[in-house]
Amino acid sequence: MAQPLLDTTQLCVHTITTKPWPIETAIDRYAAHGVQGMTVWRDALAGRDIAATGQRIRDAGLAVVSLCRGGFFPAETAAGRQAAIDDNRRAIDEAAALGAPLIVLVCGAALGQPLPVSRQQIQAGIEAVLPQAAAAGVKLAVEPLHPMYADSRSAINTLGQANDLCAAIASPWVGVAVDVYHLWWDPHLQAEIQRCGEIGRIFAFHICDWRTPTDDLLNDRGLMGEGCIPIRQIRGWVEEAGFGGFHEVEIFSNRYWTTDQETFLGRIVEVYLASG
Amino acid sequence: MAQPLLDTTQLCVHTITTKPWPIETAIDRYAAHGVQGMTVWRDALAGRDIAATGQRIRDAGLAVVSLCRGGFFPAETAAGRQAAIDDNRRAIDEAAALGAPLIVLVCGAALGQPLPVSRQQIQAGIEAVLPQAAAAGVKLAVEPLHPMYADSRSAINTLGQANDLCAAIASPWVGVAVDVYHLWWDPHLQAEIQRCGEIGRIFAFHICDWRTPTDDLLNDRGLMGEGCIPIRQIRGWVEEAGFGGFHEVEIFSNRYWTTDQETFLGRIVEVYLASG
Repeated sequence: MAQPLLDTTQLCVHTITTKPWPIETAIDRYAAHGVQGMTVWRDALAGRDIAATGQRIRDAGLAVVSLCRGGFFPAETAAGRQAAIDDNRRAIDEAAALGAPLIVLVCGAALGQPLPVSRQQIQAGIEAVLPQAAAAGVKLAVEPLHPMYADSRSAINTLGQANDLCAAIASPWVGVAVDVYHLWWDPHLQAEIQRCGEIGRIFAFHICDWRTPTDDLLNDRGLMGEGCIPIRQIRGWVEEAGFGGFHEVEIFSNRYWTTDQETFLGRIVEVYLASG
Repeated sequence: MAQPLLDTTQLCVHTITTKPWPIETAIDRYAAHGVQGMTVWRDALAGRDIAATGQRIRDAGLAVVSLCRGGFFPAETAAGRQAAIDDNRRAIDEAAALGAPLIVLVCGAALGQPLPVSRQQIQAGIEAVLPQAAAAGVKLAVEPLHPMYADSRSAINTLGQANDLCAAIASPWVGVAVDVYHLWWDPHLQAEIQRCGEIGRIFAFHICDWRTPTDDLLNDRGLMGEGCIPIRQIRGWVEEAGFGGFHEVEIFSNRYWTTDQETFLGRIVEVYLASG
């Protein structure tokens, strides 16, 4: 089991967690609460000068941890797959402009085709954009998603699959994002975290909690400590595997988005220290 | 890929699929539609003479396929675990009275404790009731549940885990129920079905479909063909593994429960032949 957290040195928050705030407000308030890193969702950059926004984040004392999100490679048509590749190329450009060292990939799944086909298209898509990512100095993190998203969001649903995919691609620019929400239930999680760590491929660590009951498949994530995920134990596993990066709070919640975001952010810091 | 279905010889429907109907209506209407088997949920037996109900099912020309459901073994207290064992003993008595050769086990998960602890308690619970089940001639089918139910319904979430559990218990009275809804996403599914079939432990095969979007984690299952599950392919895998039993339609759906059940049952037979 990991040691309790003593400070916010490794605390990062995703802009989507405080979705009602424009990114400028998020930058100010995160910094005021002692948050040390920010993962930027692409929608938060709409209409902004991306490079200037990156500078603004750094000027506030925050690290730009990653850009969310690329991926969604599978499609039933070649034109659809090419459009996805083109969009990922734009994401790489955006990450470079922002100064983000990493893009998180939600790999995608095409409803009309078998999962193995989608998996092949995911690998092909990553390989297609990989040279540009490497040239830009931007890493790519495959994020395995919970099996309840296998229909339309990701055909990569376990860390074992993500590790296999990374092994097949075999590039130091491609690793994984370990998100406790997606992976906590997996009996092979500890072993797969260890396997991933052995080759230095844990690129990100995302936290939140699983509420019981969960009312919405997408937007009912809980604050750390509010659910059943053994967050601290899993943090211990990623630390034992050599990961020392940020702990990224990524909460999609209709419940919290409708509350006062300043109070919500205060609670995030509080429960992060208590349960993270 | 399995051959298309030509008739309803292997079609079984779960009473919960047509929940608004009392079991007496379900017996009559299933028989009228050519359904050949019925899996009885325990709530459908409330206030009935169980043996007489079993006889009524058989008199209508239907096979009693299984009793749903036992399980829910984990609990934080010894008293809670004993209560679960006692309830499973009652379920075995009910199955014997009904003439059901099988009980489906939804294994359970206790929110307040780690999944590995719940898994040990599941094994201990099954082993505690196993002698009574064997004496009654009632088999027990471990049903791995989708990982989205790992919080409170089952700590057994893949067929691999269910196979491991069966191997540890090592009794011809304990096998698995393969439900496409819970397992379709698993990249190891075909291999685990084969492994399970090699020792003759596929005791049941449940079908329905995964809707996109799914609006409710519990009660938004789809009719066969309405979603993304490769039902026929998975049926092919269980057949190759030696399973020749019933195809059990188990649909929990707020959407369909509020429609005319006679029309719904007609649709079930229709889509079973088209997509099953």
